[in-house]
Amino acid sequence: MQKGPLLYTGKAKNVFGTDTPEVLWVEYTNQATALNGKRKEQIANKGQLNSAISDLLFKYLTKQGIVNHYLEQLSPTVQLVKQVKILPIEVVVRNYAAGHFVTKYNAPKMKHLVPNVHEFYFKDDALDDPFMNDEQITALEIATEAELVTLRGQADIVNVLLSNVFKQIGITLIDFKLEFGYTTDHQLILADELSPDNMRLIDDATGHSLDKDVFRNNLGDVTVGYQTVLDRLTTLFTEK
Amino acid sequence: MQKGPLLYTGKAKNVFGTDTPEVLWVEYTNQATALNGKRKEQIANKGQLNSAISDLLFKYLTKQGIVNHYLEQLSPTVQLVKQVKILPIEVVVRNYAAGHFVTKYNAPKMKHLVPNVHEFYFKDDALDDPFMNDEQITALEIATEAELVTLRGQADIVNVLLSNVFKQIGITLIDFKLEFGYTTDHQLILADELSPDNMRLIDDATGHSLDKDVFRNNLGDVTVGYQTVLDRLTTLFTEK
Repeated sequence: MQKGPLLYTGKAKNVFGTDTPEVLWVEYTNQATALNGKRKEQIANKGQLNSAISDLLFKYLTKQGIVNHYLEQLSPTVQLVKQVKILPIEVVVRNYAAGHFVTKYNAPKMKHLVPNVHEFYFKDDALDDPFMNDEQITALEIATEAELVTLRGQADIVNVLLSNVFKQIGITLIDFKLEFGYTTDHQLILADELSPDNMRLIDDATGHSLDKDVFRNNLGDVTVGYQTVLDRLTTLFTEK
Repeated sequence: MQKGPLLYTGKAKNVFGTDTPEVLWVEYTNQATALNGKRKEQIANKGQLNSAISDLLFKYLTKQGIVNHYLEQLSPTVQLVKQVKILPIEVVVRNYAAGHFVTKYNAPKMKHLVPNVHEFYFKDDALDDPFMNDEQITALEIATEAELVTLRGQADIVNVLLSNVFKQIGITLIDFKLEFGYTTDHQLILADELSPDNMRLIDDATGHSLDKDVFRNNLGDVTVGYQTVLDRLTTLFTEK
């Protein structure tokens, strides 16, 4: 497998083509961003931790029947994924109130949201990824009603599976963000990464954040929590 | 009917109690606000125009079977309404893309939205009336799913009726905002006012705004358009 040209530079990933059709080369970087990219820092080891965690979680979801873009880990920070055309919608699932859900709506912090809440954000840098409701999205033809049904359904299954995984290792999945994309044969599948950069995780024993909130809120070395998540996931999946 | 104590000061209305149970005394003021109240001006005659337009539209909706809080006009700027407990949700219905719907989502200006779009805003001054989706609203117990169904359904009927009225007088109803409240016998009914302060209206012949956009965008004397709306509505309803 040969690395091809740079196709896309994300906040914490660089995506390249390869010499194989429909296969992309993803390099996890050590960059951490907050405030919608206005604050940027390099954090040693973060790329490697995210890559390892994402590898474990995608493999688990694949085993559970969730079709997704993940192929394999090539090196500690390089993964191969199936090329998809990303649907410009970020799907956020919230199990407990946290982050801007608390500040924006004055929600009680850590309120258990039953049923869980889905939010759609229009992926558009120039517009600052605005939050939209279903009717706005379909009226502006950003996605169809059927696509939104798929996103909600897939996100709910992923939520049940990941919540259960984390529960087994003493961690609560507070919320997370997913992205989906179309394969060349027009299947809408899970894409992006599954890491503490994109989810909130609370250690049940200590109540401490094991995710990017540690960086966002300047609570110390963010990689300590990421390492905890990776270690516990590794133990769990090794036992099985 | 005796005017009672001041209960509430709105952006363009003051609401008082009366000596009759469950009846409120509403005074329309000449105040115009923009930028969420940061810009304020007094505009001669505006209160009287809004009151007269709202009177005609509520009477029309009542005749069409839409239960609402409106009772009667007492003087050019005073109306009596049934006391309701306002549900803290503003319902916006959009038939065409305009205003912040265009800027926030880069929607094509005046795009015909089919089907029309509903948006819910949480009425909370401290939070700046945030836009919310159905799941957020129900999870935070601001309203129930059943209430949101009622709001959408009532808003759609009002939309059909008002769009039709305006069409007959050469005006297109672009979008509008409604509020609803509970009567003491727990009926959720249409409340607030129905005026060019709360809706966008375009003159089909000239393409000009006949609503508060004239004030928002500093396009001249806002009352000229309001007077046009009132004159045409008066002619229409007098003919009938």
